[in-house]
Amino acid sequence: MTSFEIDKREFIKGLSLMQSVAGRKTTLPILSHILLEWEKNFLFLTGTDLETGICEELIATVHEKGKASVSAKKLYEIVRELPEETMSIQKKENQWITLQCGKSVFNLAGLDPEEFPSLPAYQEEHFSTVSTQLIREMIEKTVFAASNEESRYHLNGVLFVQTKQGGKEILRMVATDGHRLSLVDQENLNIRGIEEKGMIVPKKGVLEIRKIIGDRDGEEGMGIYFNSTHGFFKMGKSLTVIRLIDGEFPEYEQVIPKGNDKRLVMSKEKMVSSLKRVSTMASERMEGVKISLKKNSMEMSSTHQDFGDAKEEVEVGYEGPPLQVGFNARYLIEALHVMETEEVVMELKDEGSPGILRPSSTTGPSSQFCIIMPMRL
Amino acid sequence: MTSFEIDKREFIKGLSLMQSVAGRKTTLPILSHILLEWEKNFLFLTGTDLETGICEELIATVHEKGKASVSAKKLYEIVRELPEETMSIQKKENQWITLQCGKSVFNLAGLDPEEFPSLPAYQEEHFSTVSTQLIREMIEKTVFAASNEESRYHLNGVLFVQTKQGGKEILRMVATDGHRLSLVDQENLNIRGIEEKGMIVPKKGVLEIRKIIGDRDGEEGMGIYFNSTHGFFKMGKSLTVIRLIDGEFPEYEQVIPKGNDKRLVMSKEKMVSSLKRVSTMASERMEGVKISLKKNSMEMSSTHQDFGDAKEEVEVGYEGPPLQVGFNARYLIEALHVMETEEVVMELKDEGSPGILRPSSTTGPSSQFCIIMPMRL
Repeated sequence: MTSFEIDKREFIKGLSLMQSVAGRKTTLPILSHILLEWEKNFLFLTGTDLETGICEELIATVHEKGKASVSAKKLYEIVRELPEETMSIQKKENQWITLQCGKSVFNLAGLDPEEFPSLPAYQEEHFSTVSTQLIREMIEKTVFAASNEESRYHLNGVLFVQTKQGGKEILRMVATDGHRLSLVDQENLNIRGIEEKGMIVPKKGVLEIRKIIGDRDGEEGMGIYFNSTHGFFKMGKSLTVIRLIDGEFPEYEQVIPKGNDKRLVMSKEKMVSSLKRVSTMASERMEGVKISLKKNSMEMSSTHQDFGDAKEEVEVGYEGPPLQVGFNARYLIEALHVMETEEVVMELKDEGSPGILRPSSTTGPSSQFCIIMPMRL
Repeated sequence: MTSFEIDKREFIKGLSLMQSVAGRKTTLPILSHILLEWEKNFLFLTGTDLETGICEELIATVHEKGKASVSAKKLYEIVRELPEETMSIQKKENQWITLQCGKSVFNLAGLDPEEFPSLPAYQEEHFSTVSTQLIREMIEKTVFAASNEESRYHLNGVLFVQTKQGGKEILRMVATDGHRLSLVDQENLNIRGIEEKGMIVPKKGVLEIRKIIGDRDGEEGMGIYFNSTHGFFKMGKSLTVIRLIDGEFPEYEQVIPKGNDKRLVMSKEKMVSSLKRVSTMASERMEGVKISLKKNSMEMSSTHQDFGDAKEEVEVGYEGPPLQVGFNARYLIEALHVMETEEVVMELKDEGSPGILRPSSTTGPSSQFCIIMPMRL
C-alpha cells in the first residue's frame, strides 16, 4: 500500500497556504480538494481555483509513491487539531485515504487524483530572481488602488510594466479604479516575459503573493517570470501560478496631470488624523472632504445631511493663491498610508483637476505617486 | 450658553460602553442616540435599547448645567479620532451641540433630550454588594447554555434563584436551551428582590454585565438588586438596568437525572482535544459524536456523509459495563470549557438518558454541573 509519513508542523504549514485558493470556487467539486503527490522524500500539495494555483513542496518520508485528492478544508481542520507528532497517510483502494496519528484514525473521502486540474508547466531557467522585500513594497504601494468592480475586470489587477529611463531598466507597477491611480517605479529590476503593453496580474493573485511573502525579509530572493497567459512566482518551496487578466489596461500615462503648479507640503501623520476626524461627517457613500487652501493653511470640512458638519485647520507649507477642491477622504488616506516619508507633497491645479500626492523625497532607486480625481462638493 | 469640558480618555471610556446598547434597535430614531446630562462636576451618559439601559457617570468641568441627545455612533467615531486632550461641548439653540478640540470643530445634529426614554429609577439602599469575580464566574458557567432561538424567549436568559441548603443562603444561576442545562450554586450570596420562582435575566443583558465587569478582579464589589420587572447592576460609576424576561422558566429540578450510576473520570484537556478532532467528521448540523465505553477506555467516533469518518481512543477511569451513547460534541466541549478542574466526572445511565458533567472536586463554596441530552446516532 502506498503511504507516507509527515510531521504535523511541516504539514500544517503547507495546508494553511492552500486554504485561500482551494474551495473558493464551488463550481467543480474537485476544486474544493487539494492534490497530494508523494514521491522520494517529498510531499507536493497543489490547490487551485483555476485562476491562482499554489504548489508546495514539503518534506515527508515516502514508502511508495502515490497520489490522492481530498477536501482541503477537512484535511486542514483535522491536522490542525492533531498533536505535534508525526502522522502517517495511506491511500486506500477506493481513492480514500486513512490518516493515523497516535490513537486517532481518520478516513477521508477522496476523488480520482487524475481529475485534478494540473497547473501550467513552468520552466526553471526563466525565473529572474528579485528581492521579496521590493516586490512586497511595490505591491503594497499599488494594489489598494485596483478596482473591485467585477464589471471593470481590466482594472481588477496590477499592471506590471518594464520600461527604461536614462539607460536603466525599470520595473513599474500601476493600479487604478478610474477614480485614483497609484504608480511605483523601481530601478534595476528586470523580469522576463513582460510584454511591451505590460501584464495585468489580478488583485486576488497579487494579494496571495503578498501573503506568501508574509514578513520574510529581503535576503531571500523570489523568482518571477511571465509567459503570455500566466505569471509564475517562486518562493522557497512554494510556487504560485496566476492567470493574467486578458484585457486592455487604460493608457495611464495620458491621465498623469502635467500642469499642477500649486504645490503644498504637509506632515503625513497630521494630515491622516485630520482627515479621519473630518471624514466622520462626510456622507458614507461619497466620503467627500472639501479642502480650502490659503497661505500656509489648509482647512478641511465636510457635511453630513443627517449628522451635522465638521471642520479643521492644519498648518501646511503653501505659498500659492487660495484654492478649494474636493476629494474622497478615504482615497487620500489610503494614498498617504503607502508613502514612507514623514512629509508628503500635494500638487494641485484647480478645483476641476486631479491632484497628485507623492513622498517629499524619493527613497533610493524607487519613486511613486498617486493621482486622485477631484469631487464636486 | 450651557457647556462643559471633558478629557478625551474619560469621555471615550463612557462612550465605548454605550455602543452595544445604543442603536441596536432602529425602530425609534432616539434609540440610536445617547443622552448627555451635565451638572456639577459630572457628565452622565445614558444609552438604552429599551431592554438594557446603561448610565455612566464621568468627571467633567461644567459651566452651566444642560442636556443634549446626539448620535451615539457618530459622537464615538469623532471622539475616538481626537487627540488626547480636553474638549469642550456647547449646547446650541436648535438642540445641536458644538464640539471643539484644538483646531477641530464639529456640529452634531441633536434631538430634544426630553424625548429620551428614561431608565427605571433605582433605590440606592436596595443594592446588595457582591464580588464581581464570583458574578463573572457564575455568568460564564451558565450563559453559554441559554437558548438563542427567539421563539423560545423564556429560555433566552439566565435564571437567578435564591435557595437555602443546610441553613446557608445560596445564589443559583441556571440556563438551558432544552438540549442541555448548566447550573451553578454559590454559598453565602444573597441578592435582594429575587422572587421564589427566580428572575430570568436576558442573555444580552447578562453578556453586557460580563463585558462591563471585564477583567476587574474580585476586590471591587458590585451592587445588585431586583424589582419585579428589572434587574439593577451597579459597578463603579456605571449602572446597568435590565428588563427581565416575563415568562415561565422550565421546572429544571425535575430534569436533573437521578439514577446515573455509570461514573467515569477523565482528563478535561485530553477530552476536549479528542472531541475537537473527532468532531471534524461529525455532520455540521447534528455535530454528533458516539461515545463507546469499556473498562478504562472511551472510544469516540463520528461519520460524515460526504467527508468520511473519524475515531479515537482515550484512557479514562471507568469500571462499569460497556455502554454506547451519542452526544452533541460542541455541547460537551462547551460544558468542559467551564469546568475549572483538571479532571472531570461524567455520569451516565444508558444510551437514551441524559449525561451529567461535573468538576472532579468542588472548589470551595461553589458547585456546578451540566446536563446534556443524548442523541441517536
